[in-house]
Amino acid sequence: MTQPPDCVPFSPIETIAIVGVGLIGGSLAAAAKAKRLARVVIGVGRNSQRLEQARQQGLIDEGTSDLGAAASRADLMVFCTPVDRIANQVREAAPRCRPGTLITDAGSVKGTICQTVGAVPASGVAFVGSHPLAGSEKQGFEFADPRLFDGRVCVVTPQPDTCRDATLRTAAFWNALGMHVHEMSPEAHDQALAETSHLPHVVAAAMAAVLDPAHAGLTATGFRDTTRIAGGDPDLWTAILQANAPAVLAGLKKYEAELRAFHEALDAGDFGRLRELLARAKTRRDLL
Amino acid sequence: MTQPPDCVPFSPIETIAIVGVGLIGGSLAAAAKAKRLARVVIGVGRNSQRLEQARQQGLIDEGTSDLGAAASRADLMVFCTPVDRIANQVREAAPRCRPGTLITDAGSVKGTICQTVGAVPASGVAFVGSHPLAGSEKQGFEFADPRLFDGRVCVVTPQPDTCRDATLRTAAFWNALGMHVHEMSPEAHDQALAETSHLPHVVAAAMAAVLDPAHAGLTATGFRDTTRIAGGDPDLWTAILQANAPAVLAGLKKYEAELRAFHEALDAGDFGRLRELLARAKTRRDLL
Repeated sequence: MTQPPDCVPFSPIETIAIVGVGLIGGSLAAAAKAKRLARVVIGVGRNSQRLEQARQQGLIDEGTSDLGAAASRADLMVFCTPVDRIANQVREAAPRCRPGTLITDAGSVKGTICQTVGAVPASGVAFVGSHPLAGSEKQGFEFADPRLFDGRVCVVTPQPDTCRDATLRTAAFWNALGMHVHEMSPEAHDQALAETSHLPHVVAAAMAAVLDPAHAGLTATGFRDTTRIAGGDPDLWTAILQANAPAVLAGLKKYEAELRAFHEALDAGDFGRLRELLARAKTRRDLL
Repeated sequence: MTQPPDCVPFSPIETIAIVGVGLIGGSLAAAAKAKRLARVVIGVGRNSQRLEQARQQGLIDEGTSDLGAAASRADLMVFCTPVDRIANQVREAAPRCRPGTLITDAGSVKGTICQTVGAVPASGVAFVGSHPLAGSEKQGFEFADPRLFDGRVCVVTPQPDTCRDATLRTAAFWNALGMHVHEMSPEAHDQALAETSHLPHVVAAAMAAVLDPAHAGLTATGFRDTTRIAGGDPDLWTAILQANAPAVLAGLKKYEAELRAFHEALDAGDFGRLRELLARAKTRRDLL
């Protein structure tokens, strides 16, 4: 994990196309407009009525359901759709792009997307995977926030054959949105995020699932924070966990072993051991 | 779980003694002063220097290390010390109290404390267990907040032989601090809190413990929220888990079985099943 050493300023462009105008896409549109990164922001989606609402809310300048038409006009395309759709959509759009167009995405898993799309999805068109570590369990552009990316981390994941200039332009874009950009391989990204994001989702979901509804009134901030992300969309998260299943499963095995240590200490009444486990956990948590 | 139906207003008293002036005790002192529930707030602790700092900060009117002397002057005593110390301290203080004194506490586990202390720890002195569901992973009166209790839930746990007037006065006190008061038996409280507070602590701690420190920079709000409570004090939490070990262990078994279902779905590549598990978790989480 390295910060791109030669981070360049982002030069404002004529047209950005944002594919998928939900919480992330809507926030991205709002941030790009607020920071004047593009003269025209096109939102691409399936639902014309929703796009028109996003336009009226001032998030996008134009809305369209025609991915190819948007691709043909864009200098930069950012795919903010669910991870199981991004690769196919990029492959559909790229041949319609003009040479020099840069394509990136905001998917939470990078390996399968980058492998499927490749570094050059069409002649003269570059793809560089990205993962802005910003979001919410909420859904929809109604929750869009132009400051969603401020001060957060974005990982860009070039492949061995990615043109260096495309990587730097991608990094410069996220940096212009206020993000701290790190560069990693798609595979290293997926290994790390399995542990820092995908596994915590499973852990939180399982905790929420065992809550006896009769006890819901006796939850405080501890329970609520621990399970907040379990309120995320099941379809989005199924796609994420599916796309990174081996790494998530490996992390889950480590987690189950750790939990087993707590179980054994409680079962044996070994509260010295329990204290050691809690102290080690606190030391790790205090790193953040 | 019932709300006391005949909740009465709390009549301001002359002297409240708060034993243990940390985050909870300090917040309680500040709230009692802000709401003018007592004319004099005495803080009881072991460290004279810390008590003097709390006094200078305006949280308490007087500080003392002499529990018996404070008991002899108090109309109401609230024990905010760690759960493994409360029962012995109440038994030490009660014989020094004047008849009519009410004693309660803020411990997170109620069964062992209430059993050990009993409803009448000294002649004319009543004890009613309480658990205000408010707190933080932070420690020390420096983080005291007079609004910590606003709008939160407090459980009061009378025993079969507790005088009804004492229960109502205890409920009235927490209610005057802005809390929604519920009444439960100590045992029912401990069963419920094992699930809503003590088990989540184990779940969060185990998640924090498996974090590879090299990945700490790639954590976002999801990981941070899921593991926030793992930053809590290991000594306090060992005492809580020890005092409620059987119920926590029973909850942990349920949790491990739920996690196993996620494990098996991932391992089998059964993403339809995975989606069902995530959807059920979301339904439960959305109850809150």
